[in-house]
Amino acid sequence: MSDIRKHYFLDEYCIIASERSKRPSDLVSEKTERVAISNCVFCSGNEDKTPPATAVYKNGDVLEDKQDVHVTGWDVRCIPNLFPAVSPTPAKIEPSDWQIDAGFGYHEVIVETPVHGRTISDLSDHELALLMRAYKDRVVHYQSQTGIEYVSLFKNWGERAGASLEHIHSQLIALPLLPPLLRREQDVIQDIKKCPYCDIVEKEENSERFVYENADVLAFTPHFSIAPFEVWILPKQHIDHFANCADEVMRSLGDAIRFVISRYDTILDSPSYNYMFYQIADGSYHLNVRIQPVLATRAGFEKNTDIYINTVSPEDAASYLREQ
Amino acid sequence: MSDIRKHYFLDEYCIIASERSKRPSDLVSEKTERVAISNCVFCSGNEDKTPPATAVYKNGDVLEDKQDVHVTGWDVRCIPNLFPAVSPTPAKIEPSDWQIDAGFGYHEVIVETPVHGRTISDLSDHELALLMRAYKDRVVHYQSQTGIEYVSLFKNWGERAGASLEHIHSQLIALPLLPPLLRREQDVIQDIKKCPYCDIVEKEENSERFVYENADVLAFTPHFSIAPFEVWILPKQHIDHFANCADEVMRSLGDAIRFVISRYDTILDSPSYNYMFYQIADGSYHLNVRIQPVLATRAGFEKNTDIYINTVSPEDAASYLREQ
Repeated sequence: MSDIRKHYFLDEYCIIASERSKRPSDLVSEKTERVAISNCVFCSGNEDKTPPATAVYKNGDVLEDKQDVHVTGWDVRCIPNLFPAVSPTPAKIEPSDWQIDAGFGYHEVIVETPVHGRTISDLSDHELALLMRAYKDRVVHYQSQTGIEYVSLFKNWGERAGASLEHIHSQLIALPLLPPLLRREQDVIQDIKKCPYCDIVEKEENSERFVYENADVLAFTPHFSIAPFEVWILPKQHIDHFANCADEVMRSLGDAIRFVISRYDTILDSPSYNYMFYQIADGSYHLNVRIQPVLATRAGFEKNTDIYINTVSPEDAASYLREQ
Repeated sequence: MSDIRKHYFLDEYCIIASERSKRPSDLVSEKTERVAISNCVFCSGNEDKTPPATAVYKNGDVLEDKQDVHVTGWDVRCIPNLFPAVSPTPAKIEPSDWQIDAGFGYHEVIVETPVHGRTISDLSDHELALLMRAYKDRVVHYQSQTGIEYVSLFKNWGERAGASLEHIHSQLIALPLLPPLLRREQDVIQDIKKCPYCDIVEKEENSERFVYENADVLAFTPHFSIAPFEVWILPKQHIDHFANCADEVMRSLGDAIRFVISRYDTILDSPSYNYMFYQIADGSYHLNVRIQPVLATRAGFEKNTDIYINTVSPEDAASYLREQ
């Protein structure tokens, strides 16, 4: 079982999830599993190789697996993670000096397509709209569960980005606390009269860091870029959370994500990447997506200072990322 | 030239150092340079392939290179980084809305031995004492320079830890600001009556996370471990900074670092690792070293929340790391 541990004296947390770990030597060789497609647990036809699905999107309906009956012929499939970082029924843990909390929460995998080998860039408008609908449904569902304070939604693609399986998928981890990173943002934003993200939209829309826009969202390389070719996507209107986000804006977010990933694929030769959604349903926060290809290493300096050295200026990155 | 950029509205910083970067395709293939030993710029005999050394330790003396005359036969050699993240003579930058600062500072490389292929575990007591002396001298030197607020001292070893050259070396980056990570610690510590690190020494010395100790320092896997097999090393007595650290304690720190690296080499098959020194000369901070082998990936969840998922409990890690 896992537990959520607090730093000795700071407002920082880590999750000790030792279920998967064996001996030190197992850890050394941890690599992306290159499985034969016939054995891929996320592939259509292998539904019995995962825990029963919690939500299955099929022909416009939302279904769920029964213990022994799996929905087949699906479009998007949401399943509990087989090796969860947190669990809805954590073991009881004796509290210690440094607040060892049981690892309460939910950990779900969203399989984005039944077909192995496709990427986000391959998805049609219709498929992308469905994925964004699933994102919204699942986040809103977990955000309303008792004891949940934050739902982290993210995608790891490629070995350097931490993906352990090739078949494209996203993950959702629902936590019993608002992460310090978001709380620090929230504290500052609530002290500022005008939403700082609205201000950023206004300024970056016409800056040399502009990358892409559609009716609802703006994509740009942020002035403060902690990774080469990092892109932020912001709704142009003030929206705090998926719960308050129109389906149309969700689709526009998906459209911008697909544009950016396609450009990465072209100019950076399909690099590993992560994208993450940041949102707080408090009225003042401004929903945003950050996409980071993994092209550099978080090394000793970053670990010592939390200041990132980025060897590509966001102005240069934007000039490559804009449609040529 | 580089510049230090502030986040749009948070107290966070990054350094844009685009001097080395070329086209996106160059970035994709960035790997550890496997150079022939005869071409290694850190090897004895190749002194003319680096900028002139700022400090050279030789037979107990501290010398320095003249423009055209290099000290040879050295034990430890400190040189300016050829591709610095910050510079003592930065270009002037037009200030913008988000405080673009010129990248002022110093970036130095400490070559730990003239011999290629050796590791920290191979160093004798005498060699280790000399390295620790160089660490102290160089940090204290830069800490006293006008405009410098923090000196980051760290070591990257192995490709996954961000080392771009095989020949063992440490790096020092002197910055015009106290990094937010340390400032947050300082704020909390100054609010607490008793030093929290002194409290940690007392509690972890007899815990199941104990790894190693000598007369002056304690090594343990912290209760709050953000990476598998992370180890912290703390002086047993309250010491804030190298400037106030006796040579004997510096040597004891080196001894504990060597012990931990040797154990990593044995049980984790010489993994990539980083170690970092954390210190503030303010009386209340407690000097500490953190060592992290690179066995996991900072993926989407960590980037979204700043909460780390660690698959090895520090209690298990300590049991492997203790002398068998």
